[in-house]
Amino acid sequence: MKLQLALDMFPIEEAAALARQVGDQVDIIEVGTPFIVKEGMAAVRAICEACPGKTVLADVKIMDGGKPEATYAFEAGAGIVTVLAVAEDETIRNVVQVAKQYGRQVMADMIAVRDFEKRAVEVDSFEVDYICVHTAFDVQHTGQSPLEELKVLQSVIRNAKPAVAGGIKMETLAETVALAPEIIVVGGAISGAPDPAEAARKMCEIIHG
Amino acid sequence: MKLQLALDMFPIEEAAALARQVGDQVDIIEVGTPFIVKEGMAAVRAICEACPGKTVLADVKIMDGGKPEATYAFEAGAGIVTVLAVAEDETIRNVVQVAKQYGRQVMADMIAVRDFEKRAVEVDSFEVDYICVHTAFDVQHTGQSPLEELKVLQSVIRNAKPAVAGGIKMETLAETVALAPEIIVVGGAISGAPDPAEAARKMCEIIHG
Repeated sequence: MKLQLALDMFPIEEAAALARQVGDQVDIIEVGTPFIVKEGMAAVRAICEACPGKTVLADVKIMDGGKPEATYAFEAGAGIVTVLAVAEDETIRNVVQVAKQYGRQVMADMIAVRDFEKRAVEVDSFEVDYICVHTAFDVQHTGQSPLEELKVLQSVIRNAKPAVAGGIKMETLAETVALAPEIIVVGGAISGAPDPAEAARKMCEIIHG
Repeated sequence: MKLQLALDMFPIEEAAALARQVGDQVDIIEVGTPFIVKEGMAAVRAICEACPGKTVLADVKIMDGGKPEATYAFEAGAGIVTVLAVAEDETIRNVVQVAKQYGRQVMADMIAVRDFEKRAVEVDSFEVDYICVHTAFDVQHTGQSPLEELKVLQSVIRNAKPAVAGGIKMETLAETVALAPEIIVVGGAISGAPDPAEAARKMCEIIHG
């Protein structure tokens, strides 16, 4: 299991400082979508420079233009790029093709997929590296959790590794860990903690035992 | 009817120069998604500065985080921001709420929507200003066209105005104009033309008669 820290809604310098502070405690550092919307690939380059050798995920949430957008992310230094599972099949295939050329990886994000099980099987056949169940930030206040979908995902995928994102906190981490996904994505529970490095260290302990 | 020029895959200075060159010929200048992925909101600010007073659309294709992402676009000067129709209802509502606060507009992009008619009716009820039928760039080579979906859209929406995007060329413009959508989005047919201003002028002539 790996711990992925999502960085969002910070100025570049602050995000880079946080990445340097907690980089050793996490396995993957994610440059979140709002951060990319605001700063573009400069955000990915800054985080790659702040944590040399660390895997950086660019959460571009690609919906079209699979080749150019994946290329931008990999050229900026990302090890993993995200594509939306709701995108056209061809877009997902284009992102996978570019990733193979670069020797990098693709995570398909199942956010807002309506026919979940069917689409998980389809996306799994496109040779993405990870499939991420993801409760949208905008609906987390309703109490929705990604764990039920994670169980469904794990029962149907054959190639990709499962990941999970969406409001995971210190208190809910243990039940997530019990399902043993490959990647657990945490955002505010680390970046918004009084001591982010300590929060990351505690989460690591829960994950790695 | 309005002509919207989509700018994509250029360095900022080149895109701003093109915007200055054709700005007078088009009604809306779109900062395309790959351009935003690469340069962030600096791209939107640059195009707003290049064409003062012109409506700029930020094609963020918002999928989550409706409030922060719409806020970034409007703060950068965008008059219209896009949200994906496949996003959660709450995300679309959040984008609309922020747009109303700023006195700006929202376009919902129907790209890759599977249950088209049902979703068009739902999205129309969220008080977006425009709904755009959109054949993904990644599937345009299969010959798919957005015009059949445009007809369905026009038959079911009651509040939003229809827009159309996806591979529209000089040769296919007349049949698009015949359907009288509110906004026609053109990209490569203008920006890739030997004389972009002349191509925009000709398209304007076909649209405005």
